[in-house]
This record gives sequence, structure tokens and C-alpha cells, in this order.
Amino acid sequence: MGGDHGAEVVIPGAELSLIRHPDTRYILFGDEAVIKEELSKHKNLAAKSEIVHTDVAISMDAKPSQALRQGRWKSSMWKAIEAVRDGEAGAVISAGNTGALMAMAKFCLKTVPEIERPAIAAIWPTVDSECIVLDVGANVGADARQLVDFAMMGAAMARALFSQERPTVGLLNIGVEEVKGLEEVRKAGTALRECNPPFDYHGFIEGDDVGQGAVDVVVTEGFSGNIALKTAEGTAKQIAAYLRAAMSRSPMARVGAVLASGAFQALKEKMDPRQMNGGVFLGLNGIVIKSHGGTDATGFASAIDLGYDMAQSGLVDQLTGELEKFHASLNMENMSK
Amino acid sequence: MGGDHGAEVVIPGAELSLIRHPDTRYILFGDEAVIKEELSKHKNLAAKSEIVHTDVAISMDAKPSQALRQGRWKSSMWKAIEAVRDGEAGAVISAGNTGALMAMAKFCLKTVPEIERPAIAAIWPTVDSECIVLDVGANVGADARQLVDFAMMGAAMARALFSQERPTVGLLNIGVEEVKGLEEVRKAGTALRECNPPFDYHGFIEGDDVGQGAVDVVVTEGFSGNIALKTAEGTAKQIAAYLRAAMSRSPMARVGAVLASGAFQALKEKMDPRQMNGGVFLGLNGIVIKSHGGTDATGFASAIDLGYDMAQSGLVDQLTGELEKFHASLNMENMSK
Repeated sequence: MGGDHGAEVVIPGAELSLIRHPDTRYILFGDEAVIKEELSKHKNLAAKSEIVHTDVAISMDAKPSQALRQGRWKSSMWKAIEAVRDGEAGAVISAGNTGALMAMAKFCLKTVPEIERPAIAAIWPTVDSECIVLDVGANVGADARQLVDFAMMGAAMARALFSQERPTVGLLNIGVEEVKGLEEVRKAGTALRECNPPFDYHGFIEGDDVGQGAVDVVVTEGFSGNIALKTAEGTAKQIAAYLRAAMSRSPMARVGAVLASGAFQALKEKMDPRQMNGGVFLGLNGIVIKSHGGTDATGFASAIDLGYDMAQSGLVDQLTGELEKFHASLNMENMSK
Repeated sequence: MGGDHGAEVVIPGAELSLIRHPDTRYILFGDEAVIKEELSKHKNLAAKSEIVHTDVAISMDAKPSQALRQGRWKSSMWKAIEAVRDGEAGAVISAGNTGALMAMAKFCLKTVPEIERPAIAAIWPTVDSECIVLDVGANVGADARQLVDFAMMGAAMARALFSQERPTVGLLNIGVEEVKGLEEVRKAGTALRECNPPFDYHGFIEGDDVGQGAVDVVVTEGFSGNIALKTAEGTAKQIAAYLRAAMSRSPMARVGAVLASGAFQALKEKMDPRQMNGGVFLGLNGIVIKSHGGTDATGFASAIDLGYDMAQSGLVDQLTGELEKFHASLNMENMSK
């Protein structure tokens, strides 16, 4: 029921993802009448879907505490998360209210042992490939220990999605020298250098290194991570606008643009934010994917694809085992605020 | 003497800027022999320049405290700042060590009354025009009062450079609702809403609003501001790489690219980071411009142009008067940490 468009985006999106992953089964939570009507247009999906009717839907502007109070046990969002907790679903995908989704997911699924605060991880396109950036907004601020935990969680996700045994991990900072930047980041850097993590710790990176693909996993606290993510999205939109204006400024440029239209199409696909839609909540006993609320069916399908890949990867079990081993080896003294 | 290339970039850069502003006079601080040799290739500039010989140059990797200890009173950087203090120069432009430049500028010029910490402001290109973003790295963290001061300083700069009587100012946050984000940012927002500032306070903005030109002045603390700036630069580079790859992928695309080469050239100029080179140190009794250390003559000339415009604007006097009036009207209770 979530997002700006509800079932009319979610259901066509599920149909699209089903074409790519025909072994997916769906449980659709929400208003049965609305779902049924939409589902009647998507016979393939209907054959693979089960509907769980709920009367309550969390509104997009509800505060997390309010959503928990009004929607716990009974809302579509809660029921969908519960299905993951109870092993009926491998992942939950929602385009709904982010704060409410995080609050309910924490309450229902609980964090994995040793993790205090879940993070939201985004897939970020790079020049040659892609990388993982976390936290992009679950928390404001993070102490050194939390940053180290984000590094562990991000590395586990990179291992699951990119099939890399030892992903490289960098800490986002405002200079690459050891003496620069936020104290928490410096402390986390020292801890990662001194311990023996199950990934390659690269050191500090700066904002312009993210898109260059300097590392597989970029670790930062949620305020700067969210600003970086949205700034990159804004810059991409801005350059697309420049490009459109440049290509229509003269008859010759317009002819050139027609001849190069295949190339522009490829570029457009490469820069399409819908391809990278889906924030992964990491650190919970279950897989929760947050789709952008304003996306369309193509974008929602990407978020489902991501949930599919994550569910296949066995990430949660792997992460739990690793975290216990890792924390035992880590010198956590003076790392929390 | 500063930057990655020293006089061989600074001097041709000055020559370029002199063509655009023939009334500029230069004082060149540094090793006389090196400067003279370079200046011999630039007769126009030589006629407008005076050389002040210094034996000491601050190295690019000196820590600020070390630079102050070794370079105070005698280095080229210090002498250049001193010329601004003593009214011999209207602005100092350096491609040298940022931390050292800030430390010396604070020590020599002092902050204007009511300002605790200077900020570094960058000019940021937007879809239709440009905006000012501060702080992009002078400080890590800022309390509400400092954010309010950044708003004042940024607005004064916008008034000076963009000739706008009442620029719009936004606070960078991770959501536009009043309840979201960093506590310091929320407090600054409340203070700006309740007082009567000499600009239009727009409210919170997010990372993707910056390049869309949502406001004339974007206020944030230096850690996230620096990350946002570098992320935008990195994204622009990344998209340029995508575009080059797309335009060479088929013979037809290559022909199209040749026909549209004028358009691509215009786009390239629009996206050229050298056009926007120059961070302005705001809040000091004098104008200090930091050029990117790795730039070339074209980029250094942009930094000089910016110094020229700022020196013409009478910003420092205007800002001092405004700040006193503004602080008297501001409820600063509970605003400092």
C-alpha cells in the first residue's frame, strides 16, 4: 500500500521482477479489494501471489512512534515484516514511510547480536561497476564502534551481492591523512587498521572517490551519507539537463544527437536512478528493502530484484557468525562515545 | 609559491585574469629568481607587478601549527596575507596548503566582530545559474549559532557577487520536515525562522536541491559540506566518462558526436571545474581566496577573478555592520552547544 502510488506501482513492479525471477512467490499485504483489482490485470503474477488482507495502512507522513502505536500487529507494513520474521517470506519490500519501516523492522525482527543500530545501505553506480554506501540515513551520527559495525555489515553485503571474498572498505572523510576529519572516523580507522577484519581496509576516502569506484564499500554516518547520495543524484539530473540543452542548441547538434541516439539511450539507462532503486536495511534478523516512494513499476521491480538477490545470499546468517568472531578480536576500548 | 606547480601556474594565471581585469595590480610573493624567470615570459603582467622576495615557502603537507611556527612573519604566504591586512592588497589568492592558509589568515587578519570561526564558501553551479555553499571544510561540525553566522556570511557574499538584495538561504538537512535531521540544524532553523534576517530564509533543503538551484546560499557544517562538494565533482567526472564511452561505442555514435562537437564543447565548458575554482574564506577582516592546489593557469585565473569581484564588493565592511545589527536582534539562548 506504500509509496506515492501504492498498488498501481507495486503490482506491475512485481510482475516485471517475476519475468526475471520466475521462481519468486509473492505475498501481497494490504486492502484486498484494491490488490485484487490491480492483480486482475496481471495474470502471471496472480498465479504466484497470495493476498493477506489488512485494514490499516501506515501513512507516508506518520512519525515512527505514531506508526508503531497505530500499526503494530495489524498494518500491511507490520504483517509483511512479520512474514519475514516467521520465515514465510525471504525478504520484505516496501515503498512506504522509511522511518516507520525502520521502527517496525527493528521492533519485529530485532537487530542481530552485537549490533546496536541498523544502517541503510545503497547501491551506488561507479565508473566501471558499483559499490555499497552505508549509512545513507537510518541514523544521524555514529560513533567509532558503529562505523566499524557498518564496515562489517557493508562487507558482508558486498560479499553476498558482488561475490567478492575480500571486498575493499573505505571510511568517508574530508582528507586522506590520518590526522584529518571527524574524531569518530579517525578512531574507527585506527581500530580497523589494528584489527584483522574479514575484508581489506583501504583507509580514508573522499567524496570524489565514491563514484570512481575506489572501494567496494563506503562507510559513513547517516547524515553525511544521505547528503552525499542525494547530492550525487542531483548532480546527475543537473548534467542531464545541461546535456539536453546542449544537444538542442543548433540544427547540427540536433542532427548529431539523432545519429547518436543509441548512445544517448545507453547513457540514459546507465544513469537511470530506477536501476539502483532500493535501500537495504542491514543489521536486522531478516531482509528489508526500502524502495523510493516516488518510483514507478520499473524502479519498484529493481527493489524487488535486490530483495531477491539478498534473500538468496544467506547474508543474515553469515553476518551473525562473522560479527561474533570479529567483535571478539576487536579492541573496542574508547571506541564508544 | 603554493599549489602543485607554484609560479608556473600562478603567473600565467595572473596574466589571464589581467586580460579580463586590466586595472588589477599584482604583488607577487616568493622566490624572486623563480618569479622573475616566469615573469619574463609575461610582459603585460610584469608591467603591473611588484615582487616581494621571501626565502620561506610553506610546504603543502605542513600542519597548520607547524606552518604558523615556521612561516609567520616571513613566509610568502604570511607576507601576502599581511599585504591585505595593511591595505596594500584588496585580496590574497593562494593555491597553497589550505590548513596553513586558514591558520595564518585567522592569526593575521583576525575574524570580524561576532564571528568565532571563519568558513570556506564555494561557488556551486546550478541548472540555471550558480549558488554559494558554505562551509566546505574549514571546520568539522558547527553548532546552531555558527550555522546562523554562516547563513549571514553566505548571504552577504551572495549580495556582493550576485547583486541580489535578499538572497534565499537554505539549511542542508536530510529531510525537509522540521523534526528531521541534526539537532544543531533544527535549532538553527528555528532561530532563523524566528528572527528577522537580512535575507529570505527558505527552510531545509536536501542534497539534490543544491544543483537544482533551490536557494542562493546553502548552509551546512564543514564535514558534510566538503563531502557534498567532492561527491558532486566526482559524479560530474563519472558522467563525463560514461558520455565519452557512449559516444565511441558505434560508428554512427561517433559521427553524431562529431556533428554535435560544438554542443559537447559547450557542455565541457559548463562542467569544467576550473571555471568554479576558488574557495572564499568568509568571516575574516580581509579577503582570502584558496585556489585548488592541482589546478592549471585557467583555474588559477578563475580564483583571481573571484578575488577581484570580492575585493570590489566591499563585503567585509558590509558584513561587519550587518552582523552587529543582526546579532543584537537574535535570540541566541540555547544555541551554542
